Amino acid sequence: MSNTKLWLVFGLICGLASLGVGLYYFFWVKKQDDGTNRSREVAGWIRDGARAYLKKLYFALILVAGVMAVILAVVYSIEGQRGIPTAICFLFGAACSAVAGYLGMEVAVLANVRSAVAASKDLNTAFNVAFKAGAVMGFAVVGVATVGMCLIYLISGDAQLVLAYSLGCSSLALLAKAGGGIYTKTADIAADLVGKVEVGIPEDDPRNPAVVADNVGDNVGDVAGMGADIFDSYVASAVAAMLLGAAMGAEIAPFYTVLPLLLCALGILASLVGVSQVKVGKNGKPGKALNMGTYITCGLFVVLMAVVILLVPEVNNGLIWAILAGTAVGVVIGQTTEFFTSDEYKPVQITAEYSGSGAAITIISGMSYGLISIVPSIVGIVVAMMVAYFVVGGGDMGLYGIAISAVGMLATSGMIVSSDAYGPIVDNARGIAEMSGMDEEVIDRADVLDSAGNTAKAITKGFSIAAAALTVLGLFVAFVSEINAAMVAAGKGSFEISSISLMDPIVLAGIFLGSMCPPLFSALTMLSVTQNAFKMIEYIRGVFKKNPKILEGKATPDYSECVALAADGALKSLVLPAIIAIVFPLCVGFLLGPAGLTGFLGGAIITGVLFALFMSNAGGLWDNSKKYVEAGNFGGKGSEAHKAAVIGDTVGDPFKDTAGPSLNTLITVMSLVASTFAPVIAVWHLF
Amino acid sequence: MSNTKLWLVFGLICGLASLGVGLYYFFWVKKQDDGTNRSREVAGWIRDGARAYLKKLYFALILVAGVMAVILAVVYSIEGQRGIPTAICFLFGAACSAVAGYLGMEVAVLANVRSAVAASKDLNTAFNVAFKAGAVMGFAVVGVATVGMCLIYLISGDAQLVLAYSLGCSSLALLAKAGGGIYTKTADIAADLVGKVEVGIPEDDPRNPAVVADNVGDNVGDVAGMGADIFDSYVASAVAAMLLGAAMGAEIAPFYTVLPLLLCALGILASLVGVSQVKVGKNGKPGKALNMGTYITCGLFVVLMAVVILLVPEVNNGLIWAILAGTAVGVVIGQTTEFFTSDEYKPVQITAEYSGSGAAITIISGMSYGLISIVPSIVGIVVAMMVAYFVVGGGDMGLYGIAISAVGMLATSGMIVSSDAYGPIVDNARGIAEMSGMDEEVIDRADVLDSAGNTAKAITKGFSIAAAALTVLGLFVAFVSEINAAMVAAGKGSFEISSISLMDPIVLAGIFLGSMCPPLFSALTMLSVTQNAFKMIEYIRGVFKKNPKILEGKATPDYSECVALAADGALKSLVLPAIIAIVFPLCVGFLLGPAGLTGFLGGAIITGVLFALFMSNAGGLWDNSKKYVEAGNFGGKGSEAHKAAVIGDTVGDPFKDTAGPSLNTLITVMSLVASTFAPVIAVWHLF
Repeated sequence: MSNTKLWLVFGLICGLASLGVGLYYFFWVKKQDDGTNRSREVAGWIRDGARAYLKKLYFALILVAGVMAVILAVVYSIEGQRGIPTAICFLFGAACSAVAGYLGMEVAVLANVRSAVAASKDLNTAFNVAFKAGAVMGFAVVGVATVGMCLIYLISGDAQLVLAYSLGCSSLALLAKAGGGIYTKTADIAADLVGKVEVGIPEDDPRNPAVVADNVGDNVGDVAGMGADIFDSYVASAVAAMLLGAAMGAEIAPFYTVLPLLLCALGILASLVGVSQVKVGKNGKPGKALNMGTYITCGLFVVLMAVVILLVPEVNNGLIWAILAGTAVGVVIGQTTEFFTSDEYKPVQITAEYSGSGAAITIISGMSYGLISIVPSIVGIVVAMMVAYFVVGGGDMGLYGIAISAVGMLATSGMIVSSDAYGPIVDNARGIAEMSGMDEEVIDRADVLDSAGNTAKAITKGFSIAAAALTVLGLFVAFVSEINAAMVAAGKGSFEISSISLMDPIVLAGIFLGSMCPPLFSALTMLSVTQNAFKMIEYIRGVFKKNPKILEGKATPDYSECVALAADGALKSLVLPAIIAIVFPLCVGFLLGPAGLTGFLGGAIITGVLFALFMSNAGGLWDNSKKYVEAGNFGGKGSEAHKAAVIGDTVGDPFKDTAGPSLNTLITVMSLVASTFAPVIAVWHLF
Repeated sequence: MSNTKLWLVFGLICGLASLGVGLYYFFWVKKQDDGTNRSREVAGWIRDGARAYLKKLYFALILVAGVMAVILAVVYSIEGQRGIPTAICFLFGAACSAVAGYLGMEVAVLANVRSAVAASKDLNTAFNVAFKAGAVMGFAVVGVATVGMCLIYLISGDAQLVLAYSLGCSSLALLAKAGGGIYTKTADIAADLVGKVEVGIPEDDPRNPAVVADNVGDNVGDVAGMGADIFDSYVASAVAAMLLGAAMGAEIAPFYTVLPLLLCALGILASLVGVSQVKVGKNGKPGKALNMGTYITCGLFVVLMAVVILLVPEVNNGLIWAILAGTAVGVVIGQTTEFFTSDEYKPVQITAEYSGSGAAITIISGMSYGLISIVPSIVGIVVAMMVAYFVVGGGDMGLYGIAISAVGMLATSGMIVSSDAYGPIVDNARGIAEMSGMDEEVIDRADVLDSAGNTAKAITKGFSIAAAALTVLGLFVAFVSEINAAMVAAGKGSFEISSISLMDPIVLAGIFLGSMCPPLFSALTMLSVTQNAFKMIEYIRGVFKKNPKILEGKATPDYSECVALAADGALKSLVLPAIIAIVFPLCVGFLLGPAGLTGFLGGAIITGVLFALFMSNAGGLWDNSKKYVEAGNFGGKGSEAHKAAVIGDTVGDPFKDTAGPSLNTLITVMSLVASTFAPVIAVWHLF
């Protein structure tokens, strides 16, 4: 067995180990106490709502995936390529991603009530339940992804089939992320505007018909959506590096093609150790424990990665620095996020202060800081990209360096997803505690757990944004390499670098068209949120009018109606975004040809990264400005400043939870569609 | 005398004629009745405030221009080029632009009161005064610009000196536009938030200490700022085409270099005819009259332009179609603007309807539609660019075609500025009528005049955005041509097209860095508005507290304090934006070299055009949503929907009047700085 085959087997074993640990945690969580009849009833509403949504989502997914698989099979077969294997790998990717998302959500709806019940005993156990449940998601994601990629490459030895697998993962991720984002914010905004603002009942109050939908949203948006999102970046970054590796000289190509998978395996090992070290002593600090786990994982991974790269003589040692550069920029972006969204710094405080002069000033101020927050992150990404390129000597190896820096950052996803998924679970635990009438003390403990989740998020968020940016850059250069290979294969000569010059009007046209896609996508998803929320608000008003006993607490509203409203609205709203992601790049490719499509992807990447940074940070800033006012500053709760800050927070909701986080996935899908259809576009195009 | 010399002399004559007509109108306006002592007093406050601001602005300008002139003289002399002539032309450009702005503003502060007084007689005369005053601005702008460019080229025969002239114009335009935009919205927001919202007095009420500052703002932002802005696009578009023309083969170069100036001259002729045809019969429709003037001007220009191009055998006839393509996209963008910002269509109506559910929904909805409005405009620009390129056969001539399409669109600026400047004048007339206690009937007439200005604006706005986009594209290709010439001159070989490929990390780095500049610039200017408005609000609250008689109408507040507050705030806020415009491109150029700087300009153009479209349209949409609610829809004035719509309108103010319109100028200045310093950057750079 050759060296690289051994690597693949090693990757397969690590992936299976990851799955095994995930399953072990799953059953451990399931064994925990789920409390009284009341808490079980409340948790049951949320579970049923979440399942009902996932059922609808996956049904839509099967439709989309089926159509795309047929197209892939037909198109590839016409071009004399492997049509059926491509379609199978695509479907396999979509299915893997769905399984990981489903597992994560199942455990989340088990863990929320169990964590709440545990919180009635002590903080430590409650933390354990929630974090272990998060780890189920984390290990499911990296395990399924690594097993899938290793299997396909072990069987076929063809990186292009792994590309089809990746497209499958990303297509699902886009639907899950955007759909979940629309769902969760529809319910959140409607619940808040009618509940808190109009009739003045607290958050998570069972009198509010939208309260279950709101809690379901935390699961479908933040757990299943986020899991699918990381799944997709994880696979896409590895695929980009594999494609670039496969295009290298015959002697070294095998090593560079499999190296990404080896890095994934090492990341799994490091995550297994890191997750096992996340512990809080009695009344210890959960935030600290989460961070400690992340540090251990990253440190261990860096050591393992460096040792392996140094030991393999065929691999350029500079790649170590490329990976470290990626990690460094992750820290920079994390710090930037922290500065612009934490209430310990000026931006949040000033925005809160300005809120005293009315909501308009809150909005303008938050938006401005959100736009300014782009700057350090972009500078960081640019520096990381240049370091990763030049440190390995530039040229093709340099482009590979850019791609591998993303793989290195995402390799530790096992730990990162674990601590990310922890957040919505404790958020939900708090909701269940409130709705099932648990003690004030339990709710306080849940609040402590919740705020730990928020702090940990700042670091992981920086990582995921930086990784996504480097991933799409990797995908971008991989696409150019693919189109070149396809043109050579079709006997059309190689794809000249000079044909993608900035002075070419076709390229410029592509850039302009690409650059408008992320803003358009953001607008459509946000508009869906307002439209669906508007409908739900009308519905809730109607419920209160028809049955006044509900507001008096003497009757229980029908929670499933709001769940269904949010779910149907979200799924219908996915049609246009899906068209942008899949049909637009194909149209541009067939119309403007390879050069125009390259420009298109470049334009989409630029505005995609910009808008993702802007929207996430502005949203986070408004959220924390509101909390800062609520903590008693500038008049505190009920003041004019508070009213304005609440409006800012509501505007920020779809920014940070619907549009912003879906943009990475959008550009990933666009790049993958372009790469997958490269063989066809190389032959058929107008210009 | 050669043919092209004749063209220049013809241009000079047309420019002088334009100036003559402008002066004639100026004295005609001055002769009109300025009414009672009271109206004279009110107008005096506004005039003094406007003059005080301009004095401060021009003082800041002299400083900036002086420093830049010295730098230009030194740097160019070191490189063995004509340092002193370059510096002189630069200063000449800044001075010309300042003179045109000053003239326009002087006439605006004369005309506002005279138009109000005339409105007490009939609509017709009032319209005449306001429109003639606008025409003073229009003819001053095109006259001064054309005379300046023709003179320099006639004397030196060097397009690069015209480039220095253009940089002078644009540097002033940036300060005037951004400074005016910050000034006007600071005063507007502060006056509204304290006046209308907090103490509940109507707009333009003399009890409000910020009311004069608000009216001054209309003049410094909308008249002087807008004039400088068009001045700058007008010159820049001609310069881009001249530079590309001068780089052509020796036989045809003279024709192509001077053709842009000839087109300017033809546009002046057409505008003279068009303006003279703008007439309303007794109680006729002023909006219709303005549109008629625009149609006549455009139609006449197209005929003249086509005849001239057909008559000169050396000139490619395809350029006619290039110019028509530019004009067509101007119409498309105008229609798009109309659709997204007029209350006759869905976007404004839906946003108004959603306002009933709270301000957050108003904001999200308006922003989303603003982002969607980018799409048709971008597609239009792309199509126009490709038509202009391919219709003349592509290659160097194709790039010239793109540049000339912008010149063709801007040639009719004489008429377009006239009807644009009319708007703020009648807006001011309304304010004076209100403040000096004229009859309700007069105010109603002023409202009719005002709404005509708004309708006309939709068309002219579409023109100016499309023209600006094509201008910066022209400047972009002109920059690459400049850097190529500079590298050849420095013995460094020609600038290879393949070195600005999208696959080059240096180019990608430049694109990323450039793309963040327009958002950063927008954020800084908007933040200045909130900071300054916040200060002014605190000041006004203090005034009301200290002297309660003011609110009872028994004492007059000191208006000059608010004027000074707004002026000082605006000028201090210009430092950072000026650094972005001038220092950033130089840093990128010296650090990343010509390829990186090309990417930088490309990135800035993309996000600049996107954000300009988005911000202008979202702002216009919120403005009209508020008006739509005020017209009695969804509860009308005082309803919850109205409160929310007012918040939307206030957020939109800095969008559409501060950040949005300055972005074109920002990219223009960046491109001109890059082109002007091309000879230096070609020699000195790190990468």
